Amino acid sequence: MRWLLALAALAQPVAARLLAEAAEKELEAEEEEVLVHYAIAIGVSLLGVTFVVGHVMEVYGVTWMPEAAVGVLTGLVAAGLCKATGQTHLLADERFDFEFFMTFLLPPIIFEAGFNLQVTPFVRNLAPTAFFAFIGTFLSTFVVGGLVYLAGQSGLCYPMGALASLTFGSLISATDPVTVIAVFNKIGVKVDLFSMVFGESVLNDAVAIVLSKTLLLFTTQEITQGSVLTASLLFVKIFAGSIAIGVAAGLLSSYVFKKLKTKEEAQNHHEHFTMEAALSFVFPWVAYFIAEALELSGLVAILICGMVMATYTRYNLSEKGAILTMRAYKAVAAIAETFVFVYLGMAMVSFPILSHTSSLNLLVFGLLACFVGRLHIPIGSALTNCFRGPGSSLPPISLAYQFIMWWSGLRGGVAFALAAKIYSDNNFPAKCGGGAELAGCDPNNAMNDSEAILQTTMLIAALTIFVFGGSITFLALKANVMETASGGGAKSDASIVNKELEENSQVMLQCDKNAFLLRLLTHETSYKQAAEDAKALEEEAFPSESHPGSSKGSRRPSKTSIELTSPPYTSTAGKATGQTFKGWLGGKLSTTTPPLN
Amino acid sequence: MRWLLALAALAQPVAARLLAEAAEKELEAEEEEVLVHYAIAIGVSLLGVTFVVGHVMEVYGVTWMPEAAVGVLTGLVAAGLCKATGQTHLLADERFDFEFFMTFLLPPIIFEAGFNLQVTPFVRNLAPTAFFAFIGTFLSTFVVGGLVYLAGQSGLCYPMGALASLTFGSLISATDPVTVIAVFNKIGVKVDLFSMVFGESVLNDAVAIVLSKTLLLFTTQEITQGSVLTASLLFVKIFAGSIAIGVAAGLLSSYVFKKLKTKEEAQNHHEHFTMEAALSFVFPWVAYFIAEALELSGLVAILICGMVMATYTRYNLSEKGAILTMRAYKAVAAIAETFVFVYLGMAMVSFPILSHTSSLNLLVFGLLACFVGRLHIPIGSALTNCFRGPGSSLPPISLAYQFIMWWSGLRGGVAFALAAKIYSDNNFPAKCGGGAELAGCDPNNAMNDSEAILQTTMLIAALTIFVFGGSITFLALKANVMETASGGGAKSDASIVNKELEENSQVMLQCDKNAFLLRLLTHETSYKQAAEDAKALEEEAFPSESHPGSSKGSRRPSKTSIELTSPPYTSTAGKATGQTFKGWLGGKLSTTTPPLN
Repeated sequence: MRWLLALAALAQPVAARLLAEAAEKELEAEEEEVLVHYAIAIGVSLLGVTFVVGHVMEVYGVTWMPEAAVGVLTGLVAAGLCKATGQTHLLADERFDFEFFMTFLLPPIIFEAGFNLQVTPFVRNLAPTAFFAFIGTFLSTFVVGGLVYLAGQSGLCYPMGALASLTFGSLISATDPVTVIAVFNKIGVKVDLFSMVFGESVLNDAVAIVLSKTLLLFTTQEITQGSVLTASLLFVKIFAGSIAIGVAAGLLSSYVFKKLKTKEEAQNHHEHFTMEAALSFVFPWVAYFIAEALELSGLVAILICGMVMATYTRYNLSEKGAILTMRAYKAVAAIAETFVFVYLGMAMVSFPILSHTSSLNLLVFGLLACFVGRLHIPIGSALTNCFRGPGSSLPPISLAYQFIMWWSGLRGGVAFALAAKIYSDNNFPAKCGGGAELAGCDPNNAMNDSEAILQTTMLIAALTIFVFGGSITFLALKANVMETASGGGAKSDASIVNKELEENSQVMLQCDKNAFLLRLLTHETSYKQAAEDAKALEEEAFPSESHPGSSKGSRRPSKTSIELTSPPYTSTAGKATGQTFKGWLGGKLSTTTPPLN
Repeated sequence: MRWLLALAALAQPVAARLLAEAAEKELEAEEEEVLVHYAIAIGVSLLGVTFVVGHVMEVYGVTWMPEAAVGVLTGLVAAGLCKATGQTHLLADERFDFEFFMTFLLPPIIFEAGFNLQVTPFVRNLAPTAFFAFIGTFLSTFVVGGLVYLAGQSGLCYPMGALASLTFGSLISATDPVTVIAVFNKIGVKVDLFSMVFGESVLNDAVAIVLSKTLLLFTTQEITQGSVLTASLLFVKIFAGSIAIGVAAGLLSSYVFKKLKTKEEAQNHHEHFTMEAALSFVFPWVAYFIAEALELSGLVAILICGMVMATYTRYNLSEKGAILTMRAYKAVAAIAETFVFVYLGMAMVSFPILSHTSSLNLLVFGLLACFVGRLHIPIGSALTNCFRGPGSSLPPISLAYQFIMWWSGLRGGVAFALAAKIYSDNNFPAKCGGGAELAGCDPNNAMNDSEAILQTTMLIAALTIFVFGGSITFLALKANVMETASGGGAKSDASIVNKELEENSQVMLQCDKNAFLLRLLTHETSYKQAAEDAKALEEEAFPSESHPGSSKGSRRPSKTSIELTSPPYTSTAGKATGQTFKGWLGGKLSTTTPPLN
């Protein structure tokens, strides 16, 4: 409802009208409530439609349209129907709301990504990821902003003002983690590639949010050396502070769960997995809201908290608790993710983005500028590869990886949410960038810069989701960057488990040489063992989900088959036919027996 | 945020002030945002504290304070600290908000209750449950309202007005499902008793909401024969409509899942449990919001939808999907439940309920009236027992059951939410019921009737949670109404599983003689088999959770042990020591082998 307040603040505060309205308010509030209920019911139904259509397309092996695009399309069609039938009131309630997006939709998605992320590849590729996210986004902001401004001033497209161009550059430079997760996790690219693309997209959101906030300050302030320095310091403070909060919350959760001893109790058949799952929700959300309250980045805090919880807390949960949390957060994130796309689709109708066509030429140049702006990928990769020579344990970033990363600059929710906020705050009220008549821009008839930013951002987001998202599977296959045996997303195949486990323990050991932290926070004694346990748990939680290619239980935990050394009983269980549960139980047991391939 | 609007509407709409405020609004909005983030962080932290303290108390076998009371106490202490340190702004954000409660907290709790409810005992005891919920609540409203009014008029306590007394009677007559679930599910009473107490509490909420809404109409309308008739018809419409929506959504979900064939795919190792869990969320929430939008009862709709989904949809989910949904909804409900209690505790400080002590004597008479009002329990039980003679398959409602049901009139969130709404709308602005000087009530110094209702409701809710909730375990033990072998909540013990399964299939068969519905909506062919599968699945999902008394795996599914007829392998797995996963896997397998007792 916050956007209602924002809109109210926008409106001319005419006293007489306000007085009259106050009397009507109660009645209106009731009608509004009914509308809100309808709007929620419709929104949730559209989620259902998206899930069903997405599932059917997956089963039939359709890859040219990602589920994200299905969501956008569903929202678009539904909002179009609303508009066509004159239900504009209803449509108003479906408008994209920055606060709702940031408070309810983004945290579960980012937390889940951190919680179910393989921490090791992320840490291993931290240097290039950080380069792409920090320096890259910074460069991209100025490249995109500059190109769009110059194109406008040369009369090639709608002439946006300089500061507006730069702000647009900052928000469009943020690749979107939601889209990246939705697209990449589905197709299952190699884990190193995924962690770079995903890591960049999460971190650069925070960069984009801070950068655009800072730039917006200059709409009311003078640009001085001092203010630029302050902005830079703010940057450092925001990242350091958010990381500190995330780490603190994560470590605290490990310690609390260790002391609660639910794992030991579960071994004595006193199950507490409901409580474990409920309590596990507390720490990341507190981290998120404390970071937001301190005006730091909640996204970074909750991501880091998720990663720390995956590294330490998970060992202190009972098996059922660990599996329940992994799966439940994944389901919640799937709901939030799909909601974002449906919401985006509806916003394309509910915001007046196509009411002015004079600035559509901006889209072409904006998109071109985005491609140029993402050239920080080869730059950063070249730099990284200087340190990844023949002596290094890490392979250099291949040209195929670079191409996929350059291509996969998927934009989405965050860029759009920032643009929607600029639109509703009307930060750039000047039409045609304040300079008249350039590029045929008629100040009497054109949209203003705020509207131009919203329009262009929204169309770029939709284009990248449909075009890039739709082509990524094909390209990833061509470029040979898919996980072998089409194993799943951020998870690796059983055949490379052992090698990975070795690596995992090495990376961890470098941060915590004597495993002091591990022993303090969990009951594990060595990182190697911990990594093996983690892998087994993960394979148990997500056996072969959503990956029609990987079948025959080839991705079962290696651990399990070590223990169950006497397979004959499986066939016994499997043969106990005539029972409905046969399939379930039989399947469950038999999947543990085939030899790893 | 809706209460902000409500409060704004309440305030005198002075034009000049509004104009000045509009300018400041943006700055305030930003400060407000920071405060809201702190408030959420604090609220979520208190959840964590409650979970931890509740768990520790459970482990140490403390029964005199239910976890619900821990939550209230936590909220109370935290809000007290806020107040003591002068953080009143913060406190304002923690105020109980009717809309938030009804939109975010209640639906998951009620849905989970329906989804994890044993449908058969509920159907079996539908007649007395309906009597208690409908006729009982109706009687109780007039008894409580009348007694409180008479006590006031006789000068025994604060003299509330007639309509205010009746409205108070209507909202305080609703026993609270959240408290009932929190208290009863923990201690594990017999399933028939639980389903009556719980069923009454869900249905009478809807009754109370409708009844108090109707009564509030008369604050501005004349009471005529016509208006009373309209109100009665509204009643029928609300219940019939809500049930229809819930059933429709539930059946649709079964059909959709059947057609998606995720269960069959899972048997071929194509897992889709994340999608199943995400999609399962769609149907009940759509039902809830459509019912609310049509001004019916969302609670009734979502409860019925949950029950239908448990009866049919669950068979169409893969095993992992079925278990994930059961557990995940339970965890979500646990979070929402605890939030309600923490919220209640905070509200006791954030609302000015103790600023006036002159109406505290109302508490005594209100509480007494509640006890008298709940005498519809023996009346309804006596009527029921007329039909449960020696020839009936159902046992009569024993005196012990009647006593527990009479005693367990736990009040909580719903009553309080209604009172908070009356307070913020200030429906009864008259002080001392409009008649001056009665019972020493000084109109210059006393609170008005709205405040008196809020104060009394809140204190009665707290008292019932602490006193009734704290004593119920002791009394249930004494009255011998606990599930044998201290089995869990709405779930029965393994020793009576077979008998129950027989009964289950009988009750279902009565509604759907040829299992037409079952065969249309699932792949099951007989209700008997379906009931057995359901039982096995349930026992798999909640092995022996939260019941320290039930150990040694005695509550494992009978089904499992039928199939796994060759136990020797278990010891093999159990002996594979030196592995961290030993305990988990060993435990998992060995629990299936001990003979049922």
